[in-house]
Amino acid sequence: MNDTGARADADFEHAFDRAMNLQPVGPDRLRGHTEAAYWNMVGPYGGIVAAVVMRALMLRADRVGDPLQLTVNFAGPLKAGPFDVVVDARRTNRTTQHWSIEIEQPADDGNGAQVVAIATATTATRRTVWSQPEARPPEVPGPEGLERLGPRGNLRWPTMYDMRYVQGLPLQPGDGTSLSMFWIRDQPHRTIDYPALTALCDASFPRIFVVRGSFTPIATVSMNIYFHGSAQALADDGNGHLLTVSEAKVFDAGFFDQHSTVWSPGRRLLASTQQIVWYKE
Amino acid sequence: MNDTGARADADFEHAFDRAMNLQPVGPDRLRGHTEAAYWNMVGPYGGIVAAVVMRALMLRADRVGDPLQLTVNFAGPLKAGPFDVVVDARRTNRTTQHWSIEIEQPADDGNGAQVVAIATATTATRRTVWSQPEARPPEVPGPEGLERLGPRGNLRWPTMYDMRYVQGLPLQPGDGTSLSMFWIRDQPHRTIDYPALTALCDASFPRIFVVRGSFTPIATVSMNIYFHGSAQALADDGNGHLLTVSEAKVFDAGFFDQHSTVWSPGRRLLASTQQIVWYKE
Repeated sequence: MNDTGARADADFEHAFDRAMNLQPVGPDRLRGHTEAAYWNMVGPYGGIVAAVVMRALMLRADRVGDPLQLTVNFAGPLKAGPFDVVVDARRTNRTTQHWSIEIEQPADDGNGAQVVAIATATTATRRTVWSQPEARPPEVPGPEGLERLGPRGNLRWPTMYDMRYVQGLPLQPGDGTSLSMFWIRDQPHRTIDYPALTALCDASFPRIFVVRGSFTPIATVSMNIYFHGSAQALADDGNGHLLTVSEAKVFDAGFFDQHSTVWSPGRRLLASTQQIVWYKE
Repeated sequence: MNDTGARADADFEHAFDRAMNLQPVGPDRLRGHTEAAYWNMVGPYGGIVAAVVMRALMLRADRVGDPLQLTVNFAGPLKAGPFDVVVDARRTNRTTQHWSIEIEQPADDGNGAQVVAIATATTATRRTVWSQPEARPPEVPGPEGLERLGPRGNLRWPTMYDMRYVQGLPLQPGDGTSLSMFWIRDQPHRTIDYPALTALCDASFPRIFVVRGSFTPIATVSMNIYFHGSAQALADDGNGHLLTVSEAKVFDAGFFDQHSTVWSPGRRLLASTQQIVWYKE
């Protein structure tokens, strides 16, 4: 495998697909296992947790349409090991369907289960009606001429992405703003789907690392994603490097926000995503 | 009462407070009643539904800190009449607390209850740590010299706000973008609190009415709010007209997004809020 190529071996399983391996263990209940390849500092990368929620939704035979909205609240740390995903179709309408999804693990004291992620999602049937983009991606150099981001200390998850920064590298002196723009793609390459798009919506480093250029402990509290395209649109124009533009609006009293857009190679908006993040000091 | 003044009568009850009247009817269960003063076309104004969710949260004696995040999924229409709010403290941490909240009404077929809104929320303890605003409000004329928005057809809820548009009026020829900027305040005046701030996060008219200048049926599917300030910050600098800046990123295949910021008189960011909205054609 070369540094930018896809794996073509028939017996190759991408670590992302291992992370997405969910098996039914009861009605509306799936079991998965944390995947070391996407480890963050003290637990799984948040994007992979959100992707597990999305994967559980995509497995539902009774799903109406494609994902439209996902909100994941990170209620507590996910420990290495097995976890359960509980999926509840709360209400089904003609063009939209509303879901509640939770991830549970055995409680620390051994008594019962403890919720670690609480999510709501909407799937929806898209229709051929008047459509119009309004926001446009910034004009930036393509990924070909840019250097791939090297390892970030001992963090595992960044090595699972081919990230090429246009501006706004974390943990180094910058221009005093939190703005980053970078190209991103799964590494090794993998055909995009909603779980993979969900995961990379979390790949912007914490904005506080960019605006200050230095480290402080952080934890995402809640992450929201709007998906702006059908499965067909994602298949047609979602493969290749995607451009992410990310910035904060305010760092206030221990919490900051982070707003990102994710653009296709053909300059289509695939996702808009926000998160609110705890920071220590 | 003059057109912009507050009601000082001791026996005056603001319609907003009637809309927020929730009475306990069981463990973790409150009962309210829809309020005609905030009626939209075929049901309550979505902002008032989100505010009811927030009000239920604010009533909790076991709440840790102030609101940080709220996501409300509008699963189905709320009918005129009583409704129940079911509040579940899913997990309590040292500085954050994670909530699930649903609004139910009797099912159309008379069998049991039907969920009409599905929400998650986080409350959090803010701390005195390094803080810094990044985004700034636009430089616009103050509300004093601007005309108050008149009635919008027969819609009730807009009459409950004193709205003064700087630009981007709905349902009239515009500049081809969806951008609106307007000042907003409860009418009659009322001291701001988190439920009132929640409600006015939905007061931007649908962006499709602005960009096209014409009407089409719409319905908010999901709304997300990040609250950027403690209760003290809201009390200190949340009263008076608030500046809302609102725009869409994309209108695609029956759904558009809408991203807004809400600024205090002192130019502090009080809330950033998004929604994803169904449109007919």
